[in-house]
Amino acid sequence: MAELALIAAIEELLPAPGERVVRWVGDDAAVVRARPLAVTSIDTIAEGVHFELATHSFEDAGHKALAAALSDLAAMGANPGEAYVSLALPRDLPPADALSLVKGMTALAERTGTTMAGGDIVRAGALVITVCVTGWAERENQLAGRDGARPGDVVGLTGDLGASAAGLLMLEGQVPGLGPTEAEFLARRHRCPEPRLAAGRAIAAAGATAMIDLSDGLATDAAHVADSSGVRLVLDLLTAPLGPGVREAAEAIGRDPLELAATGGEDYELLFTVSPDLWGSTAAAAGTVVTRLGTVVEGNGVELRGPGGRILEEMRGYEHP
Amino acid sequence: MAELALIAAIEELLPAPGERVVRWVGDDAAVVRARPLAVTSIDTIAEGVHFELATHSFEDAGHKALAAALSDLAAMGANPGEAYVSLALPRDLPPADALSLVKGMTALAERTGTTMAGGDIVRAGALVITVCVTGWAERENQLAGRDGARPGDVVGLTGDLGASAAGLLMLEGQVPGLGPTEAEFLARRHRCPEPRLAAGRAIAAAGATAMIDLSDGLATDAAHVADSSGVRLVLDLLTAPLGPGVREAAEAIGRDPLELAATGGEDYELLFTVSPDLWGSTAAAAGTVVTRLGTVVEGNGVELRGPGGRILEEMRGYEHP
Repeated sequence: MAELALIAAIEELLPAPGERVVRWVGDDAAVVRARPLAVTSIDTIAEGVHFELATHSFEDAGHKALAAALSDLAAMGANPGEAYVSLALPRDLPPADALSLVKGMTALAERTGTTMAGGDIVRAGALVITVCVTGWAERENQLAGRDGARPGDVVGLTGDLGASAAGLLMLEGQVPGLGPTEAEFLARRHRCPEPRLAAGRAIAAAGATAMIDLSDGLATDAAHVADSSGVRLVLDLLTAPLGPGVREAAEAIGRDPLELAATGGEDYELLFTVSPDLWGSTAAAAGTVVTRLGTVVEGNGVELRGPGGRILEEMRGYEHP
Repeated sequence: MAELALIAAIEELLPAPGERVVRWVGDDAAVVRARPLAVTSIDTIAEGVHFELATHSFEDAGHKALAAALSDLAAMGANPGEAYVSLALPRDLPPADALSLVKGMTALAERTGTTMAGGDIVRAGALVITVCVTGWAERENQLAGRDGARPGDVVGLTGDLGASAAGLLMLEGQVPGLGPTEAEFLARRHRCPEPRLAAGRAIAAAGATAMIDLSDGLATDAAHVADSSGVRLVLDLLTAPLGPGVREAAEAIGRDPLELAATGGEDYELLFTVSPDLWGSTAAAAGTVVTRLGTVVEGNGVELRGPGGRILEEMRGYEHP
């Protein structure tokens, strides 16, 4: 299948564009009627680095690439708009696999109201998937950055931690003895993370002072907020809900479940800060379980506390060279 | 140099953002105050496929990746706004080379008024550069798609053809006997193409019915316009200006210069259609040399005519499977 034929086959798969899309695939560029603020992020995943084809279907890979990009919009509180997708495909990749990858993306795009409005397909020495997403907002105060956390703020977390890391360990065969239902659940959490779009919009609009999505893991991502805001985050890991199977997975490899939860990446939950008087209304607005994980204090870096208040890990703020 | 240190070093290189940019690097996503229409395109180039490090510096590669993306905005008539850049870098790539690549981009970004507003850096098995650019327009009639060419329209071309292909042949050592000035000029045309942003805006605003940038070559790209518009383009190649060195390069490899000009890619000139009564004003507005290359007739596909009106090449419209 030549490149043009593959592009045509992909275009057949694409759901109809949103009503704000004036021009899309088939032109030099897409044209979209804008809302006042454009919120844009670009995200790349590479086979062998961010995912393995041994543990991911092509649908999974497509889902994951779009989910990671949309998660950045969730962390800002933006409404998803359009996705622009670049596929660098190895020469010997069967076209059916490329189409499966796109199907994994379109399913998530439809579910989240995202229009896949443009793309590029090239041949390359490795499978590399890049997704640039644009979301929209009406006003700046609907959005949350990383830089607004203030001493006295409460730190909140959506959902639970560690399930993606546990799922990866399970897929690698390192967690024997799980039942099929639990195994399937964990695999899905690793392969097909869900961007927290609705929760992100609600939390940002409710007055979050800062927000970030947990792609690299709680410890690292909390440090980004601390660094951008010029504050210190003190987090009590004992209050953090662990994803199902996380304890079993950690024990199977001889690691502390709390440590797996704090450092395992790709949970794509949202970590946010908000003033204490808005905690109740923000938690109520989130539309999903949120947990009060700690507080913001003066200083820098992140402090993760475990049993008895013991400091499990302490990260300095990043110093730019 | 770890990834975070590389990112920090890259951020140091970035020129200050444009005044419409509210948030940029360092947050989960960039936030930009929009104008009414967002015009977005994504473009990927891979080492060994779209460029060779034997003939391109890292600066060249960075320039080329951004230029190819901006050229799509030129072809729509949009004002460049922001660029989002993904770099998939081989593990053993020295950080200094990645920085050189970014410098090649920032130089072009500054010159064209483009803010490099976000990015992602990953390790991968191949050097793959993806640029997603967003441009802006106030009204739909400032923009030109591919689908508006009508029978009776005139076909116009900016600049000249074949210099990029000739430059590549020269860089490969296939065109002996060129003087150093001419060789340097040709190399630049191949390595550092200039997106026709000002001409594209002027031509679209002057009333072009369709426009496309010549990335794959005149024959192929003209066929895209014919296909999208449902018309036939009849082009007289004898009127097409050949880039300097194209005749020498073609003769050196025993090819017809007209054929090299028509099929050589990456000239990034603009091909456009416009009603005959607007030809004069459009040509005058373009701000660069434009050539009347042919006419639009009923039918489909593209007809390239050479000496004596002989049909050199005829391309059918694309049939989607």
